[in-house]
Amino acid sequence: MLTRVEWRVSLRLVGTVLKWLWVPLALPLGLALYDGTALLPFLVPTVGTVAVGAALERLTDEDSLGEREAFLMVSATWLAVSVVGAVPFVVAGAGTLANPVNALFESMSGITTTGATVVVDFGAHSRAVLLWRAVLQWMGGLGILVLATAILSQLSVGGAQLMETESQTRDVNKLTPKISQTAGLLGRLYLGLTALQVAVLYGLHLGGLAPAMTLYDAVAHAFTTISTAGFSPRPESVAAFSPAVQWAVVPFMVVGATNFFLVYFVVTGSLDRLYENEEFRFYVGLLLLFAAGVAGILFADGGPPAGVEEVARHSLFQVVSIVTTTGYASTNFDLWSSGAKHLLFVCMFVGGMAGSTTCSIKTLRWLVVLKAFRRDLFTASNPRAVRPVRLSGSVVEEETIRDIYAYTLVSLLFFIAATVFVAVDASRGALSITEFEAMGAAASTFFNVGPAFGIAGPFASYEPFSAPTKLLMTFLMWVGRIEIIPVLVLLTPAFWRS
Amino acid sequence: MLTRVEWRVSLRLVGTVLKWLWVPLALPLGLALYDGTALLPFLVPTVGTVAVGAALERLTDEDSLGEREAFLMVSATWLAVSVVGAVPFVVAGAGTLANPVNALFESMSGITTTGATVVVDFGAHSRAVLLWRAVLQWMGGLGILVLATAILSQLSVGGAQLMETESQTRDVNKLTPKISQTAGLLGRLYLGLTALQVAVLYGLHLGGLAPAMTLYDAVAHAFTTISTAGFSPRPESVAAFSPAVQWAVVPFMVVGATNFFLVYFVVTGSLDRLYENEEFRFYVGLLLLFAAGVAGILFADGGPPAGVEEVARHSLFQVVSIVTTTGYASTNFDLWSSGAKHLLFVCMFVGGMAGSTTCSIKTLRWLVVLKAFRRDLFTASNPRAVRPVRLSGSVVEEETIRDIYAYTLVSLLFFIAATVFVAVDASRGALSITEFEAMGAAASTFFNVGPAFGIAGPFASYEPFSAPTKLLMTFLMWVGRIEIIPVLVLLTPAFWRS
Ligand SMILES: [K+]
Ligand SMILES: [K+]
Repeated sequence: MLTRVEWRVSLRLVGTVLKWLWVPLALPLGLALYDGTALLPFLVPTVGTVAVGAALERLTDEDSLGEREAFLMVSATWLAVSVVGAVPFVVAGAGTLANPVNALFESMSGITTTGATVVVDFGAHSRAVLLWRAVLQWMGGLGILVLATAILSQLSVGGAQLMETESQTRDVNKLTPKISQTAGLLGRLYLGLTALQVAVLYGLHLGGLAPAMTLYDAVAHAFTTISTAGFSPRPESVAAFSPAVQWAVVPFMVVGATNFFLVYFVVTGSLDRLYENEEFRFYVGLLLLFAAGVAGILFADGGPPAGVEEVARHSLFQVVSIVTTTGYASTNFDLWSSGAKHLLFVCMFVGGMAGSTTCSIKTLRWLVVLKAFRRDLFTASNPRAVRPVRLSGSVVEEETIRDIYAYTLVSLLFFIAATVFVAVDASRGALSITEFEAMGAAASTFFNVGPAFGIAGPFASYEPFSAPTKLLMTFLMWVGRIEIIPVLVLLTPAFWRS
Repeated sequence: MLTRVEWRVSLRLVGTVLKWLWVPLALPLGLALYDGTALLPFLVPTVGTVAVGAALERLTDEDSLGEREAFLMVSATWLAVSVVGAVPFVVAGAGTLANPVNALFESMSGITTTGATVVVDFGAHSRAVLLWRAVLQWMGGLGILVLATAILSQLSVGGAQLMETESQTRDVNKLTPKISQTAGLLGRLYLGLTALQVAVLYGLHLGGLAPAMTLYDAVAHAFTTISTAGFSPRPESVAAFSPAVQWAVVPFMVVGATNFFLVYFVVTGSLDRLYENEEFRFYVGLLLLFAAGVAGILFADGGPPAGVEEVARHSLFQVVSIVTTTGYASTNFDLWSSGAKHLLFVCMFVGGMAGSTTCSIKTLRWLVVLKAFRRDLFTASNPRAVRPVRLSGSVVEEETIRDIYAYTLVSLLFFIAATVFVAVDASRGALSITEFEAMGAAASTFFNVGPAFGIAGPFASYEPFSAPTKLLMTFLMWVGRIEIIPVLVLLTPAFWRS
């Protein structure tokens, strides 16, 4: 009955992706030409990726994807692009990025829209190299949109089929045309939002409200906001800019972590979809709740002399930044009190809406977990009652609830195991970190947030971690970004058996 | 359709339990008479509990328990007994136990078989008071056996219905006769195993292999081993005794965390039930695996000069002690390396078999989680395949799998929330603890293990924690011991509505 996995079909599609990587590589290449900096870091991967991509495309003429081939394609694509993405860093050979483990970490952090960096001296790198980090993230954000809406939703990964989508077809064998069609729609929306943010940020500069915001900065930050990714060419992240910029970035982070079909409906005039969508109300509610919590703690702490606007801005900015898994910093939140830091830590587990560029567990799953567990408590004491779980009025299948429980549980187990690895490995290597730093770094990489606390704080760098820990984190970013299941299925023997 | 919860029926049964508490109270009272120490600490609660118990019994003549009444009875029983159990400590008024918050903590730690102590100076307390701690645990172990096998298995709490039981009747309205019948069978087995351990421990003393093991010590430790509870009248726990005693305690901890019906079958000659039971093989396999892991780390660390026997004994003892949730210490494992301590930390989440006196998540649930998740990975890539999950050959219902996923998830969420509370509360009160100490103390109290690391280490005391943290831990011990759901249902408004 079962047939052997058609890995050639998967790799052929990976080849197509690799071949087209010359397009994003052309952006930093152009900037390097303009700046007169080294071209080789971008020429080498361009030639390499087109050659390898073209070779992989010749593996087969077959193009119908089954479930297993889709999982393999997804896992292999993110891995292959991260390898190509690391080449410019290694070839450029500057600073900490010259080290291959660091380069792979940075590239995976880019393509997975994580934003955890191993850069220590930003001045050591050319503008073109720093732009490549932003381009990787912009591309990773678009990639995840297509993945989440067109592929994972059809593979029923951890309840992804529940999210608001354009259509509800589930014919996996017709994935390919659907991918192109969805990618086209989402791509235009994504591009439009990016352009809008460039205009807003550079407009603030032209209006005198953002002296530090150059056009280069505007583009680099727009690339990494809509993708909820968080790399910045500035070591101080968004704290390098004026309060006006910080306020302006907030709504773009919120939109980046909003279901893109919902954004599409709103853009095309169906504002009522926002109110009808239970997940959206839950998402916005959580943002406001956590921001109010952080603000309350900051006020109670007294802390550094700060006005109401400043506390409100940093509370909202940091909560939005972390819940949406963007990872920007408007201030060094690592200096906040234990209570505020722990609240931000909890925010890492939340995530924005399904069907966006956000990472982490996501509000869709938490909403179903909450509703289902409340229902379970009801039926525990009323076993003869039948009470289905509803989301925006529709019944959620019990099988989906089971999958979502399992997904959330497995996420937490990954987090705990990763924390233990990071803490123990640090102690063996005589790197002095606290368990909270280990917890933060593990959660922040696995949930693709970016910065964490202490050694991995917002103005710090992941560079001091040992090579084994950085490789583990690279693995965590990969697994976490593509929703765990596509990697885990590859690890089961049954996947490969015919 | 739904009727109001019959809280009078629940409280009437709580009253019966309270009334009979004079029996366990008679044990320390007898010792106090013999030793010539204060009697009032035991006379006051004897009079009080009989009076309150008799009054509660008069609330109603009704005795048929519905699901909701059963949940209320279970929650209220553990809470009420912990309050009565605290009275001797307060009335005795010696040492740290004179403080009411400490007394309640110690009593809840006793009745929930946790074994976390706030005692600082063991010499400040009479032998009778220290015996009361052990009696509370012995009673708590028996209570949980009856609860787990006769009540929770019928209320389908987190998959408890899967465990090996004497019968499979699910007529909740006939719970009362079933409770007496099961309690009788299990009570005799429990008493027999306790007597056997007293004989073994005191026999070692008489044979010259355990100089420090008095009859009093033998009884106190037998009371707290079979109940996987872990209070010791000695500040150094089982490390106060010879290697022979430590080896002798291990099998009793293992049996205490083995399904008691399985123990019953083995005692009555059906040894083959052991091999047929998948959970038992999994449980023993995990014990050996973790013990080998700890031994490997201890050998690799070099550490203090120790022979093979010593490393083997402490590795096996500590892993068995923590997996079974007993919580004894054969050595100060807080001095071990980060790797060994983290492995013990992970052991806290395991627990022994369902249907025993063990706490934590339990091997039954982990086995189902592992099997079901493996199945889920298979069906993710083969959606047309139908593959039920089997346990010891029988199909596990999908609804049960969903409940077990939910239970395990909620356990981890409780652990994370408790860790945050403990860490933040400590930082606000200027108590200097590491996040790992907070994690350990949170897990150890919620999963009813007992000791943890650092400030809550095996030879240390929970006394330095703030009152809010100690009250939270008291709550965690209560919620964790009775399998979470009975307390959580009380917090839903639907429970109380008619
Ligand atoms: K990010
Ligand atoms: K215990």
